[in-house]
Amino acid sequence: MGSDTVVSPFILVNFKSYREGAGNNAGQIGSAAESVMQESGITIGVAPQFTELHPFCKHYEIPVYAQHIDPVEGAFTGRVPAFAVRAAGCAGSLINHSERRLSIADIEATVAVAKFHHMESVVCTNNVAVSAAAAAFSPTYIAVEPPELIGSGISVAKADPDIIRNSVETVHRMNPEVKVLCGAGIQSGECVKMVLSLGADGVLLASSVVKAKDPEAVLRDMVSLL
Amino acid sequence: MGSDTVVSPFILVNFKSYREGAGNNAGQIGSAAESVMQESGITIGVAPQFTELHPFCKHYEIPVYAQHIDPVEGAFTGRVPAFAVRAAGCAGSLINHSERRLSIADIEATVAVAKFHHMESVVCTNNVAVSAAAAAFSPTYIAVEPPELIGSGISVAKADPDIIRNSVETVHRMNPEVKVLCGAGIQSGECVKMVLSLGADGVLLASSVVKAKDPEAVLRDMVSLL
Amino acid sequence: MGSDTVVSPFILVNFKSYREGAGNNAGQIGSAAESVMQESGITIGVAPQFTELHPFCKHYEIPVYAQHIDPVEGAFTGRVPAFAVRAAGCAGSLINHSERRLSIADIEATVAVAKFHHMESVVCTNNVAVSAAAAAFSPTYIAVEPPELIGSGISVAKADPDIIRNSVETVHRMNPEVKVLCGAGIQSGECVKMVLSLGADGVLLASSVVKAKDPEAVLRDMVSLL
Amino acid sequence: MGSDTVVSPFILVNFKSYREGAGNNAGQIGSAAESVMQESGITIGVAPQFTELHPFCKHYEIPVYAQHIDPVEGAFTGRVPAFAVRAAGCAGSLINHSERRLSIADIEATVAVAKFHHMESVVCTNNVAVSAAAAAFSPTYIAVEPPELIGSGISVAKADPDIIRNSVETVHRMNPEVKVLCGAGIQSGECVKMVLSLGADGVLLASSVVKAKDPEAVLRDMVSLL
Repeated sequence: MGSDTVVSPFILVNFKSYREGAGNNAGQIGSAAESVMQESGITIGVAPQFTELHPFCKHYEIPVYAQHIDPVEGAFTGRVPAFAVRAAGCAGSLINHSERRLSIADIEATVAVAKFHHMESVVCTNNVAVSAAAAAFSPTYIAVEPPELIGSGISVAKADPDIIRNSVETVHRMNPEVKVLCGAGIQSGECVKMVLSLGADGVLLASSVVKAKDPEAVLRDMVSLL
Repeated sequence: MGSDTVVSPFILVNFKSYREGAGNNAGQIGSAAESVMQESGITIGVAPQFTELHPFCKHYEIPVYAQHIDPVEGAFTGRVPAFAVRAAGCAGSLINHSERRLSIADIEATVAVAKFHHMESVVCTNNVAVSAAAAAFSPTYIAVEPPELIGSGISVAKADPDIIRNSVETVHRMNPEVKVLCGAGIQSGECVKMVLSLGADGVLLASSVVKAKDPEAVLRDMVSLL
Repeated sequence: MGSDTVVSPFILVNFKSYREGAGNNAGQIGSAAESVMQESGITIGVAPQFTELHPFCKHYEIPVYAQHIDPVEGAFTGRVPAFAVRAAGCAGSLINHSERRLSIADIEATVAVAKFHHMESVVCTNNVAVSAAAAAFSPTYIAVEPPELIGSGISVAKADPDIIRNSVETVHRMNPEVKVLCGAGIQSGECVKMVLSLGADGVLLASSVVKAKDPEAVLRDMVSLL
Repeated sequence: MGSDTVVSPFILVNFKSYREGAGNNAGQIGSAAESVMQESGITIGVAPQFTELHPFCKHYEIPVYAQHIDPVEGAFTGRVPAFAVRAAGCAGSLINHSERRLSIADIEATVAVAKFHHMESVVCTNNVAVSAAAAAFSPTYIAVEPPELIGSGISVAKADPDIIRNSVETVHRMNPEVKVLCGAGIQSGECVKMVLSLGADGVLLASSVVKAKDPEAVLRDMVSLL
């Protein structure tokens, strides 16, 4: 079973290129994630901007993820080599976020390079069919997010519970080892609870935490019903 | 005059995604650049991998450049926001390297965002015509590199001196404030001297320094005839 | 003088991927353009979908343009080689439309390949600075279109006359041979007249003609005040 | 069974952007394919350049494929709308050729739009894992081609029979309805026979036919051992 019930749910906070996800504010989110994770026992990961990966890995006792990695080494300029992200201390990376789409060949190569470096891979998908395809690469997680709901404030758990249920079912039929996250519009602990009750292993968050006035309060609410 | 003779030449070392440009080796190149810059008075900049920008800006008294920046802020995942690179302490960024090409609209927007953040812009070009076009954006530097010579070991200064001469002349006719770098296959102080004698303001280096057994010796040779 | 007053203004109709720009409807637009061009003496070009280039060049006495060409020949799959577009009988091509952006190096190469094949090049730009840069390539036309007004129904001639005036002035200062078109939101003969009075040599149209119930009536209106 | 033995093998000739795949030469290849198909009973499809799709569909009694389609309609410039390719009379399209890679979301959308228009989809892949993923979209064909052998003159059937065997097995385990083609370096009837004996349903050819002095003789050799 991929969704072994004794494993903690996983909450992953994507800082995107938000101003509020940089500098002092980024540090506050990092501290908040660390506190709430310690108190609740729920795993909270963060995906800050590339320039912050190194200090985040040094300063916070939480798993840190890149927002993207490239399966390259050598004469490639302006890329994000997986080995460098690993060396910075990251636990894993988002791959193929809807705001940073990759070719299918590059997704395969990137999941493989993440495995090679003992990093977790969180492959983002936009619907059930793409989730099924991505499951063929056996990533650690598939994170399904309906693009039209990303940043919308409308929770996927309420607007489209079927995409969660069907993604979980389809992915597990393909490969029961692959865990499923769900994201888009998740605002509250109630949403998180609904997502998990539909079979997912966790959630992918962004603006609701990063742009919050009090990120710690929001994170505490997110885990409050688990 | 853009090529004011009292201004130091500029040597910029692009670490690309080379393994030798990461970890301990990256640190050795940083130290070497710092030493040679202090001894020679020649400005030596470095463009390490994104995850190393933050520690490099803290540890070395040399100007640090990103290999790429994106003119974005907000809901953009896996991008390299200019503001974050600036916050890390970088002096500037490469833009449109032949290994990370941008649309013309994005080059314009990226040079503008660099200016907004008081960062230097080093727009890479592949020939004289593209250098002329890029000069319209008034970047700090235009770095012309014939793609077929990048990483070739054949020096542009010997193989194609006209591209240097004509780029300098064309760029300065368009905008005398824009400085011109030249790169591709530069191996030695003799090459650097030739490039400068053709009117350029500096050089863009990569493998000859980054993959060297003794980067400090190479850098010392590069500045030896200036 | 690039805007020689005895030369006819140029109206170019981009069929995009509109359903209304395909099949029988495409033929009606082609016939309409032919009729209005013959009656008015104003040059009306069309840019239909790739699959329609061949029949359009055979059937209508109007200049036909591709919506995009690639500067390639050889082992490139799914591309639009310039030589094939020329062989189909096209007069020229759009290059770098905001819905099909190219790298600066590819724009340069594409304008050059169009010249090599004696085809006209219509390089699309998004603002004055990018127009200036594109002028360095000496295309036949630069077509400036503020992206936020494309398809908006708000005419660039009313919303942003300065972008037209400044693009014309800047492009002609760079290269007086390059003609300037302007587009985005152009609805009527009055708009066309305003654009030309600001110094442009013509207009780039799309939805206002292609999605019209009576394309011929719209085209007749467009040329009515010239 | 996807590889039903009474169904004809399928030979698909990709004209790429070869000069030899345009103009009179294209016509000769079309005639040759028609003749050999009629004589042999083996289905021979062609994928000419976009501008040739319309005349090819009119003139030759063979199935015609696009080299690429876009799942778009509306305000998209320089794209290849699936509906237009269908209207030209095409039987199907290549999707995600290694020289025209797509995001995984776009592959899914493109296979779906092909089905909607009753067109065949030939999704190209680069290895067994990507073939497995693509099978989740239930295209008509998956065409596996090791990129390093494309255009090499070294036959995949000899250099890497396992990729064929494993792709067939994996794809059929995922979805027995999906047929498997194989390509890269196929030169002769012997190669074709080997590919089919490894379980594939056909081959994807390009330079060996398109750049041949006598395409008809090559095609006749290709089917000679079937």
